[in-house]
Amino acid sequence: MFSHMKDLQFEAKPDGPDAAFARRLQEVLGGKWGEMTVANQYLYQGWNCRLPGKYKDLFLDVGTEEMGHVEMIATMITRLLENAPLSLQEAAADNPMVGAIYGGSNPAHFIHGGGGALPVDSAGVPWNGNFITASGNLMADFQLNVTAEAQGRLQVARLFNMTDDPGVKNMLRFLLARDTMHQNMWMAAIEQLKEDGLEEMPVPDAFPDSKEFTEQFSYTYLDFSPGTDASEGRWASGPAPDGKGEFRYDHSPRAHAPEPVLPPGDPRLYGTNPGLAKGAVNKVKSKLT
Amino acid sequence: MFSHMKDLQFEAKPDGPDAAFARRLQEVLGGKWGEMTVANQYLYQGWNCRLPGKYKDLFLDVGTEEMGHVEMIATMITRLLENAPLSLQEAAADNPMVGAIYGGSNPAHFIHGGGGALPVDSAGVPWNGNFITASGNLMADFQLNVTAEAQGRLQVARLFNMTDDPGVKNMLRFLLARDTMHQNMWMAAIEQLKEDGLEEMPVPDAFPDSKEFTEQFSYTYLDFSPGTDASEGRWASGPAPDGKGEFRYDHSPRAHAPEPVLPPGDPRLYGTNPGLAKGAVNKVKSKLT
Amino acid sequence: MFSHMKDLQFEAKPDGPDAAFARRLQEVLGGKWGEMTVANQYLYQGWNCRLPGKYKDLFLDVGTEEMGHVEMIATMITRLLENAPLSLQEAAADNPMVGAIYGGSNPAHFIHGGGGALPVDSAGVPWNGNFITASGNLMADFQLNVTAEAQGRLQVARLFNMTDDPGVKNMLRFLLARDTMHQNMWMAAIEQLKEDGLEEMPVPDAFPDSKEFTEQFSYTYLDFSPGTDASEGRWASGPAPDGKGEFRYDHSPRAHAPEPVLPPGDPRLYGTNPGLAKGAVNKVKSKLT
Amino acid sequence: MFSHMKDLQFEAKPDGPDAAFARRLQEVLGGKWGEMTVANQYLYQGWNCRLPGKYKDLFLDVGTEEMGHVEMIATMITRLLENAPLSLQEAAADNPMVGAIYGGSNPAHFIHGGGGALPVDSAGVPWNGNFITASGNLMADFQLNVTAEAQGRLQVARLFNMTDDPGVKNMLRFLLARDTMHQNMWMAAIEQLKEDGLEEMPVPDAFPDSKEFTEQFSYTYLDFSPGTDASEGRWASGPAPDGKGEFRYDHSPRAHAPEPVLPPGDPRLYGTNPGLAKGAVNKVKSKLT
Amino acid sequence: MFSHMKDLQFEAKPDGPDAAFARRLQEVLGGKWGEMTVANQYLYQGWNCRLPGKYKDLFLDVGTEEMGHVEMIATMITRLLENAPLSLQEAAADNPMVGAIYGGSNPAHFIHGGGGALPVDSAGVPWNGNFITASGNLMADFQLNVTAEAQGRLQVARLFNMTDDPGVKNMLRFLLARDTMHQNMWMAAIEQLKEDGLEEMPVPDAFPDSKEFTEQFSYTYLDFSPGTDASEGRWASGPAPDGKGEFRYDHSPRAHAPEPVLPPGDPRLYGTNPGLAKGAVNKVKSKLT
Amino acid sequence: MFSHMKDLQFEAKPDGPDAAFARRLQEVLGGKWGEMTVANQYLYQGWNCRLPGKYKDLFLDVGTEEMGHVEMIATMITRLLENAPLSLQEAAADNPMVGAIYGGSNPAHFIHGGGGALPVDSAGVPWNGNFITASGNLMADFQLNVTAEAQGRLQVARLFNMTDDPGVKNMLRFLLARDTMHQNMWMAAIEQLKEDGLEEMPVPDAFPDSKEFTEQFSYTYLDFSPGTDASEGRWASGPAPDGKGEFRYDHSPRAHAPEPVLPPGDPRLYGTNPGLAKGAVNKVKSKLT
Repeated sequence: MFSHMKDLQFEAKPDGPDAAFARRLQEVLGGKWGEMTVANQYLYQGWNCRLPGKYKDLFLDVGTEEMGHVEMIATMITRLLENAPLSLQEAAADNPMVGAIYGGSNPAHFIHGGGGALPVDSAGVPWNGNFITASGNLMADFQLNVTAEAQGRLQVARLFNMTDDPGVKNMLRFLLARDTMHQNMWMAAIEQLKEDGLEEMPVPDAFPDSKEFTEQFSYTYLDFSPGTDASEGRWASGPAPDGKGEFRYDHSPRAHAPEPVLPPGDPRLYGTNPGLAKGAVNKVKSKLT
Repeated sequence: MFSHMKDLQFEAKPDGPDAAFARRLQEVLGGKWGEMTVANQYLYQGWNCRLPGKYKDLFLDVGTEEMGHVEMIATMITRLLENAPLSLQEAAADNPMVGAIYGGSNPAHFIHGGGGALPVDSAGVPWNGNFITASGNLMADFQLNVTAEAQGRLQVARLFNMTDDPGVKNMLRFLLARDTMHQNMWMAAIEQLKEDGLEEMPVPDAFPDSKEFTEQFSYTYLDFSPGTDASEGRWASGPAPDGKGEFRYDHSPRAHAPEPVLPPGDPRLYGTNPGLAKGAVNKVKSKLT
Repeated sequence: MFSHMKDLQFEAKPDGPDAAFARRLQEVLGGKWGEMTVANQYLYQGWNCRLPGKYKDLFLDVGTEEMGHVEMIATMITRLLENAPLSLQEAAADNPMVGAIYGGSNPAHFIHGGGGALPVDSAGVPWNGNFITASGNLMADFQLNVTAEAQGRLQVARLFNMTDDPGVKNMLRFLLARDTMHQNMWMAAIEQLKEDGLEEMPVPDAFPDSKEFTEQFSYTYLDFSPGTDASEGRWASGPAPDGKGEFRYDHSPRAHAPEPVLPPGDPRLYGTNPGLAKGAVNKVKSKLT
Repeated sequence: MFSHMKDLQFEAKPDGPDAAFARRLQEVLGGKWGEMTVANQYLYQGWNCRLPGKYKDLFLDVGTEEMGHVEMIATMITRLLENAPLSLQEAAADNPMVGAIYGGSNPAHFIHGGGGALPVDSAGVPWNGNFITASGNLMADFQLNVTAEAQGRLQVARLFNMTDDPGVKNMLRFLLARDTMHQNMWMAAIEQLKEDGLEEMPVPDAFPDSKEFTEQFSYTYLDFSPGTDASEGRWASGPAPDGKGEFRYDHSPRAHAPEPVLPPGDPRLYGTNPGLAKGAVNKVKSKLT
Repeated sequence: MFSHMKDLQFEAKPDGPDAAFARRLQEVLGGKWGEMTVANQYLYQGWNCRLPGKYKDLFLDVGTEEMGHVEMIATMITRLLENAPLSLQEAAADNPMVGAIYGGSNPAHFIHGGGGALPVDSAGVPWNGNFITASGNLMADFQLNVTAEAQGRLQVARLFNMTDDPGVKNMLRFLLARDTMHQNMWMAAIEQLKEDGLEEMPVPDAFPDSKEFTEQFSYTYLDFSPGTDASEGRWASGPAPDGKGEFRYDHSPRAHAPEPVLPPGDPRLYGTNPGLAKGAVNKVKSKLT
Repeated sequence: MFSHMKDLQFEAKPDGPDAAFARRLQEVLGGKWGEMTVANQYLYQGWNCRLPGKYKDLFLDVGTEEMGHVEMIATMITRLLENAPLSLQEAAADNPMVGAIYGGSNPAHFIHGGGGALPVDSAGVPWNGNFITASGNLMADFQLNVTAEAQGRLQVARLFNMTDDPGVKNMLRFLLARDTMHQNMWMAAIEQLKEDGLEEMPVPDAFPDSKEFTEQFSYTYLDFSPGTDASEGRWASGPAPDGKGEFRYDHSPRAHAPEPVLPPGDPRLYGTNPGLAKGAVNKVKSKLT
């Protein structure tokens, strides 16, 4: 159960409007790596978590904080949308700024949202549930959360260079700091999970090694293009990070199975089948009724 | 530029048909974490990579291999779809197996695909381009690739427990081994990137710390729910993984900005505005022509 | 800013597992009219609301409550997914219940979610941002909220008849009651908005009547099919609900504009154009370089 | 069965081209609340309607009219797309109008549509079937239709303020008038449904009150944030609109169920489970084959 | 402008209910190649058509007929959905037919649609606007229409083999006949277009041959895999269908451009750049503010 | 199994950057008719093909080539994205070119892709699996492939007219030539399929004519609008292209079935039912528990 307080976690007030930047800021609200994604991802990970205690608490605490970030960015966008040029006539005024705002903004902000934030990305494509994963395996999901915060901070850092507005930059500074914390936090959670003996890399640890084709395939780099640049990397020789194998480099990976030849399909599906030349087709026809 | 050889990287032949499992196997073909995702993700990361040499080579080698996995799984699915019950009448036969296959399969496999694999997930939802990310920042993307292989291997391991077919299990064993390799490989790539001095965590390393609100927010865990379970984790105290700060735990995070009060909107957008009671509305009306 | 408490608003515990019902229950979690929709819709309506005071408070209170409903239903689904048959072999056991569960469940619940709830509808299609609207016009949005709660309660009532599980039915009884409250609440909000003189039907009230073609078209029912059944309804004669006009019934609505004839298109777009027969095409070719 | 006449219901001819406005006008053609939505929604509601007579006739008459509006707007867009600047070189001409049109238009109008209308919204996102609902419950659907016409008229009114073109404004005036009619009509249909004793609010009327937790939850406003602004509204005290209860205001809503603790999951799904520390994991491994 | 008559173009009445087949039939209603696709595709092609006369008339006539097919299939589905088992308890009855229907049906038909047709495909994925194309080039679009009718008739023929219901088969026979007509019709339209000298293959005819690299690339088959099976086909030697060139077969197609080496990216986007080792990164940092 | 060589099939280097054209070029990379579509479509058609030999080889050769086109266009886009204006301040510089680029570009290219290509269309909507079809029937799919290449070449020809950049035009010339080849090739494949006696038009040939309502419906043009323009076309009289029938023109197509009247629905779904006036509803209520 949630409760809401009306104050914001951090100030979300631009010094002036900029509808074109509002469109860009949507990427970190409703884009694949935006705040709606991390908020929902951590909450679903928490609700589905079968480990009571610190891990479940962690997911729900951070997911709840991210809901407050959704609120901050939505508020910022709504303010950035004020005083926007609505028509071509306004856009074609002397000030080139106005023309650039008109061309660079998302019309749905005005026609659909009436000057308010939308749950969409910077192209106007709606956020969707496939952006999040809650797999039930905490190691796989902590790794995902590390990258979610890394991609998120990367996007905020880019947006920081896309505006001169001090008020906007101020909020972005706060978000950058929280993304620093959250990257560190999920990395610490990975360490914790290992310390608690709950999961190791590679995921899932509990799948028995003996069941996979370890010998031939679990530590071999396959070079699928001429040139050997990739052989110089850490991934081509030496001990693998999981401590269980030694990397090998295979310069000419071979196929292990012959060309697949498929049998004729069910004639009731009318696929084009081998041997079904005219005569055979007529026979099939006569059987189908 | 690519070339294709007709043999398969590994055998993809079931011992018998099972259209219900074919639907399930689609998850690792066209689902969010399936082979279409990793193939396209690594190829786009390679094409967009601005570092010539071992990293670019790495992306393109592995992306090319994954295209061969797409081929293997598509082939397996096509074979699993043979001899499927097409109608309710067949499904209602004595054998409960037939009824379960009928109910558990994806009808589009037959109506749209004519008994062939589709670029969709296990629910029949099409693969889409938002499943992949090529951000240009190799650290962020290597982290994503680690989780992609972790989620992928997790799903293959689950599918391994969803069938008794020895031929299917054989192919899954191969895929599990490659996912073991690829998890190790992307972890090694992260180490390499650090060794080469190109990128550190948190991402993006090049964003100057002084520009974010480090002091207050970059290492502080905010506890947004009563109860202190999360305070017991590695993320709540001690040195942060980035080696630059010390975790703190804030039991009662406070709001840093007052409730946002928005000004009236542009009357040409007809939002419900403060103070726009009946009289004011009429004034607005008279202005609008 | 939000905070979370670990207790649930209401109990969400089934008496036993039922993976097929878990799939069905997803409709009111991640479907068009599910809890993710109302939670996000009311929160965005609140964040974008330009009227401080009781309306903004209303949106945010109820949106926050709905987040707790998302949590309850996710929890219920996770519990319903326990002990599910994973393979065809299990499904083909003697017990027909097991076969029906296997065929009727969503495989992604297990392969992707690891036995946890997903942000998808009952077909497995992800929730998306286009499910919500926050238009800035409170009357339009209150009307939408009335129907959202009506459609939601309708779906919960249907689900109530799709299970015998007392624990499930218990939670649904709670949700039905809240949907009763919320339908009443949004209807009361419409009354309030009118009392406060802020908005009337039809929406938007502030658009001047004189600007539309009121006389001919604003109160006329157009009968686009033979037969006059529809002429018997309240919408075909008598005073219109807005109190400003009288319904009329037009038995043979006529066209008011001739067939549109489009001029030739830009030859650089290579559309098939009138008069561009062979000779003309060659002339166009010679101009294009 | 339908028939088509070549004349338009109303003139759809701009005074001049404006590709940037063409993009904006797409919102009311292929957007969530556009003409494709209402046309398809009313037709599906009619086809699925189990009440012969005036209601079924109503749905099909109005759905058929809306098909004619789809045609008008498509025609208008096609005409607005003429003479558009296709390249950056043209856009960078002296006239700032041309640059604004270039930046503000949808490139797919030219590359995909060859200068013709597309079934997409103003951001270029395709119309989809989830935009419509035909629930079978006429009260729920009439409420939806009221809001569909309200949102639609709101958007047309906004578009009216986004152009100076007299020909465009002329068509919008017609659409505004029809949306006035249709809002009135669906409100009248709600009244009619009540008069005919077929349905009441809240929906569905036929669900027995005794089955929901009426006493505690059906009329109680739950205040999930500090501050009591919302207590001043019509929804917090006095008789509820359904005439069956009295609103109450609960200042501190409590949780009714303890924190959910989930049991360990099926080990075959490799979720991270409580108590599955290293030793236990190894035991699970030995069982899995 | 359209009008509607209440009678159906052809009877759409099953002999009995079958909710599992109703789900399958959705493919030809709301699937990629279903009736909603052809209806909308032909209407948009007609509205955007810049050739007055027989071609425009053709598009609009056939699009209008297809709207009547949407109606027929929707009606059939609604009737097939009657008397369906709603719960697991009903599904687990003695009759295996009931279990197969339960497992094979789409739950949204009942929860969302209340027992009515939905604008979705057989997996429950909504129809969307990207299914249709109206390119403005009639030759390209007539070719698309040929395949749309071919794919559509193929799917109807498959569905014909998926049911024993005489009433259903009766309607499918009608649809098969119309798809026969429509395939013939669009092929005839291609012939007509050539006769009228308006367009030739390859599309677009008006693009000047001299502008493409005809000599080397316009008639050469490139063999991108070992093995020469494909060299035996009509596409590898002899005159090309356009009558303008002679097919050639290239056994070892070569690359025509060296490996692309990208320059460093804009440092404000924080991509991992060549030469940006630690020292350089710090320099970039100092420049960024 | 695939292998990759680092060189490109053809040069993909612009003379200068143009982020607005980069957005437009995305249409032929990730749009419905772009290179991702043809690459995946031909590969899936090949993997699912049940005819070993020249047809299967054809699909896989050409699909493999198209993967190389994906690579070329992605490379070109990445290069076009260099030196782009990132902020409104840069856009508002004196040079109107800069403003037009800012307004006409896709912000996600920078925020999400870091200056690299994305798997999306020109509006920024992600590529999805529904863009491709591999039906198993080669005639239906060859027809689709003809139109795919026709639509593709049409779009490339339009893009050719949207830029002045010689390097871009050079690559487009290559693509135009290949699309010429591929249109010819798929037309030749249709001829080959007929020569081999495997399939005829209309598709599917194997469905027995006697099972459809040939006499009345298979060769009759139905005129669903007043006016007889369409009667002048090849499709209205004379022999049909399939050589099996003679076209007829029906000036007033009639309905063949009466208005459908649906029975009351299952009361457990709470649809509004005929005769369920107040009293009846109460009776239903008493039965529902």
